[in-house]
Amino acid sequence: MQASEIVSKMYSGDKFSQLLGIKIIEVNKGYCKLEMEVRSDMLNGFDILHGGVSYALADSCLAFAANTHGRMCVSLNAKMSYPESSKEGDILTAESVEITVTNRIGIYDVFVKNQNDVMIGVFRGTVYRTEKEY
Amino acid sequence: MQASEIVSKMYSGDKFSQLLGIKIIEVNKGYCKLEMEVRSDMLNGFDILHGGVSYALADSCLAFAANTHGRMCVSLNAKMSYPESSKEGDILTAESVEITVTNRIGIYDVFVKNQNDVMIGVFRGTVYRTEKEY
Amino acid sequence: MQASEIVSKMYSGDKFSQLLGIKIIEVNKGYCKLEMEVRSDMLNGFDILHGGVSYALADSCLAFAANTHGRMCVSLNAKMSYPESSKEGDILTAESVEITVTNRIGIYDVFVKNQNDVMIGVFRGTVYRTEKEY
Amino acid sequence: MQASEIVSKMYSGDKFSQLLGIKIIEVNKGYCKLEMEVRSDMLNGFDILHGGVSYALADSCLAFAANTHGRMCVSLNAKMSYPESSKEGDILTAESVEITVTNRIGIYDVFVKNQNDVMIGVFRGTVYRTEKEY
Repeated sequence: MQASEIVSKMYSGDKFSQLLGIKIIEVNKGYCKLEMEVRSDMLNGFDILHGGVSYALADSCLAFAANTHGRMCVSLNAKMSYPESSKEGDILTAESVEITVTNRIGIYDVFVKNQNDVMIGVFRGTVYRTEKEY
Repeated sequence: MQASEIVSKMYSGDKFSQLLGIKIIEVNKGYCKLEMEVRSDMLNGFDILHGGVSYALADSCLAFAANTHGRMCVSLNAKMSYPESSKEGDILTAESVEITVTNRIGIYDVFVKNQNDVMIGVFRGTVYRTEKEY
Repeated sequence: MQASEIVSKMYSGDKFSQLLGIKIIEVNKGYCKLEMEVRSDMLNGFDILHGGVSYALADSCLAFAANTHGRMCVSLNAKMSYPESSKEGDILTAESVEITVTNRIGIYDVFVKNQNDVMIGVFRGTVYRTEKEY
Repeated sequence: MQASEIVSKMYSGDKFSQLLGIKIIEVNKGYCKLEMEVRSDMLNGFDILHGGVSYALADSCLAFAANTHGRMCVSLNAKMSYPESSKEGDILTAESVEITVTNRIGIYDVFVKNQNDVMIGVFRGTVYRTEKEY
């Protein structure tokens, strides 16, 4: 299976990414780029984007990127930092960078930026690479 | 303002926590307990709970707990680990533990468990304590 | 092999823990407590304890605690926060808390405090549990 | 003060970096590259490099890189992952990448590799940027 086929299959069953209106912009082996608009139902009590939403966007980006190699990968853990906040109407992009892949684990960065290229989320996740193949 | 008043005010404006159907179970100074049911629109492409949802639950719990002291707190970063997966119909609880609070930062753990007391999310977040008071 | 035997064996080969003057205070299944004095050769350019030293103390504590169950464990990753700084002459203790252990991974907290019970390091590590037994 | 002057001043007081035999290879605004040889007194009980040593190397690299902008920066927290182990005699290099700098915080990656360009440590740290200037 090709990278784009794997991600299409994953996305078609990924109800939560669909609920958030996440769109796939580009997919390659070890790489993924996503886009999402910040809606009013994604804000927290301070009227800024809930940290869970930008994290979820980054987490989907990680999952898609890691699975493109054809082995099923599951998240072990991830860390998210918030250099700046985001508000309703912002158009966010999430883009992955493959840091390292060993037989057992993969480490990926995901950078989340707004339409003005301001970094609003810095994410790093570790996946466990199972033996299951697509 | 009391801890419970602060959290009620935050929750009433927190559209994303409402979208996820998060319920407040208990609030005290430096402490918060939340509950949420896993719905079908929260699953990812592997038919298990999307990591962004359990993270969002934990992140709301962090935000509520940290703000109970009466100073407005914003998240700097957080880390989430996934010891086990969760599935549709699970009833999740998130409970915070205050690790340390200095003048500048606060560190909180949030433990997410399912109805069988199985740990499905282990979260630690750092907040920045602004000068703004409630 | 007993928990204390495993840790004694590990410690006897652990040259770096010895270089730092780390002492084992207590060991049990899933638990470890260590002590260390801050020496002048452990300081950084700001004349406070180098972050790598308190991290190393916490990392040894994690390794010892995780291996007490009799299966060889290796660190996958860890996070360290520094709520307060530490200075020469401080007596630090590191104490572990077992958060969760599954077949594949273990998650442990380690809290590092000075002689006045002030938290100077908050650590969380994830280990991979190999099949190798002691 | 220039970037290289700031780091020279920091290094001259940094007893722990000196104890580890860390050498400064290159310094620029927002950038630092260090080198270190793995000695026998840096190994743990499994006869591989103690995780605290590669972390300390990365942490020094973070501190030097972050302070080059002329404002005194202190570490808030950091995360380290270990894709592969390292052994006696390895020559390690640590190189920083500036992810983002806001008025309040800076986020830096540090990649630690051995002489064969194998990644043995993946580090990300957050610093707090104080008002103090060099």
